Amino acid sequence: MKNNRFDNKLSQTGVVFQPLYTQVENHVKQLIVEQRWKPGEMLPNEFQLAEELGVSQGTVRKALNGLTSAKILSRRQGVGTFVSEHTNQDSLYRYYPIICDGKAPELPKAELLSLELIKVPKNVLAAFGTEGNMKVFEVLRRRILNNEFCIFEKIYLPHTYFKALEGTQELPHTLYHFYQTQFNLTVQATTDRIKADIATAEDARLLGVKKGDALLEVQRIAHSLDGKAIEFRISRCRSDNYHYLVEST
Amino acid sequence: MKNNRFDNKLSQTGVVFQPLYTQVENHVKQLIVEQRWKPGEMLPNEFQLAEELGVSQGTVRKALNGLTSAKILSRRQGVGTFVSEHTNQDSLYRYYPIICDGKAPELPKAELLSLELIKVPKNVLAAFGTEGNMKVFEVLRRRILNNEFCIFEKIYLPHTYFKALEGTQELPHTLYHFYQTQFNLTVQATTDRIKADIATAEDARLLGVKKGDALLEVQRIAHSLDGKAIEFRISRCRSDNYHYLVEST
Repeated sequence: MKNNRFDNKLSQTGVVFQPLYTQVENHVKQLIVEQRWKPGEMLPNEFQLAEELGVSQGTVRKALNGLTSAKILSRRQGVGTFVSEHTNQDSLYRYYPIICDGKAPELPKAELLSLELIKVPKNVLAAFGTEGNMKVFEVLRRRILNNEFCIFEKIYLPHTYFKALEGTQELPHTLYHFYQTQFNLTVQATTDRIKADIATAEDARLLGVKKGDALLEVQRIAHSLDGKAIEFRISRCRSDNYHYLVEST
Repeated sequence: MKNNRFDNKLSQTGVVFQPLYTQVENHVKQLIVEQRWKPGEMLPNEFQLAEELGVSQGTVRKALNGLTSAKILSRRQGVGTFVSEHTNQDSLYRYYPIICDGKAPELPKAELLSLELIKVPKNVLAAFGTEGNMKVFEVLRRRILNNEFCIFEKIYLPHTYFKALEGTQELPHTLYHFYQTQFNLTVQATTDRIKADIATAEDARLLGVKKGDALLEVQRIAHSLDGKAIEFRISRCRSDNYHYLVEST
C-alpha cells in the first residue's frame, strides 16, 4: 500500500471524495433500486429533481447523463426521462451476443428442461463469492435460433433472492425482464468468460452436434444495480454456424 | 421503405437532422483525424473552442463528453482535455481480451514470424468490403502470455494505408499505437466474431497444444476514427488456461 495520505482512491479505508454529480447519480440509482421509480416510469423533470435534492439543475443533468449512458435511464425526446425496461430492444440484444453467421441478431427462443432447488454445486459457488451451504435454483434450458437448438444453458439463481420461484413450472423466455418485474432485480452489468471446449455426449444429444465437435462455453455472472451477483449462467454454444459478437467503440 | 416524409432517420436519401452538439462532436473528431491535434496533445479550453466554433460552451462540453466516453479524448482533472493515445493503459487493455485464467489482465508480448506484401486472400477480402485485386501486408505473429505461446495471429493491413511498411523487418508489440503514431490511423472501433475450432497440425506446432484440442478463433475488424476498415486479424487462441473476457455495463 502506498503511504501517501492524499492518495484516497488507493486507500482501502480512507474516505473517497466524489464529485457532487456522482453522489446524485448514486442516490438516484439507489432510489431506482428501492423502486421509488419503477421500470418504465417517468422521472420528475430536472428542475423538480434539482429542487428536491437541493443541487443545481446542471448537477442533476450530469447525473442523469451518466445513468443514461449506463442505460439505467432512457430519454424520449420532448417527453422526459424514464427508468429503462429490459423489454427495450437495445437492452435485450445487448445481453444476447450469440449470432447466426451472416444473419442479423435475433433473440433466441427458450425451451425449459427443468427447474429445481438444489444445494449449490462446487463450480458455481465461486461465482457468487460466498461460502458454505447456499441453495440455488438450477434452471436448464435449450435456446433456439434459426429453428435449431444452438445453446444449452445451466442457470443458477440464489434462493435468497428468488424465493418466489418455488413451485414455479414455467418461465418466460426473457429472464432479465422477469427478474426486473417480478423480483425487483435489474441486471446492470455482466461478465462473460469465453472458452472453447469439445462437445461431450450430453452436448451432442442436446444440441444435435457430434461428440468431439468444438463448442463455445460462456460463463456469465450477472450483477444487479446494487452490485449483487444474482445469476450465474453456463452456456454451451454451437459454433458451426454461430459466433459470439463483441463490438467495442 | 416507409412513405412518411417526416421519417428522416429511416430515409436513405433524406436529410438527417443532428443536434448541434453532435455536429460539433463530428467536427472535432474530423479535426483529430486531420491531425489538427495529435495524440497526447491538449485541446484548447471549452471557452476558446466555443468561441472558435461559434457555439455555446454548453454545446462544446456536451460534444467533448461524448468524445470522452468514446475514449477519443481523455480528461486530466484540473489540467485539461487531451487526445487519447493508444499507450494509455485503459485503451491498451480495452483491446486485449485474452486473459490467463485466474490472473489479472496482462499485455501479451509478440514474436514476429513474418511480414509480407501479398495479394489479398479470399477469406480476407470480405472484411475490407472491397472487390478485386487489393494488396495487403500479411503479418504472422505469436503472442506470449504467462511465459508461453498462447495466440497465433494473422494480421492483414491494406497496402493503400500502410505503404511505408514495405521493407520493414520489425514491428513493435503494440500495433495500434504504431498505426496511430506512424500512419495517423487511430483504431476507434473493433468488431470481434468469436468461434470455437479444433486445433490443426499448424496450431499444434505453433501453440504447443495437441491436434484436436479446442481453440478460440477470434476474427477482428478494426475501424479508424473516420470509419475505414484498416486491419483484419484472425487470432487462434489457446483456451486450456485462457479465456476471452467481456464486461458489459
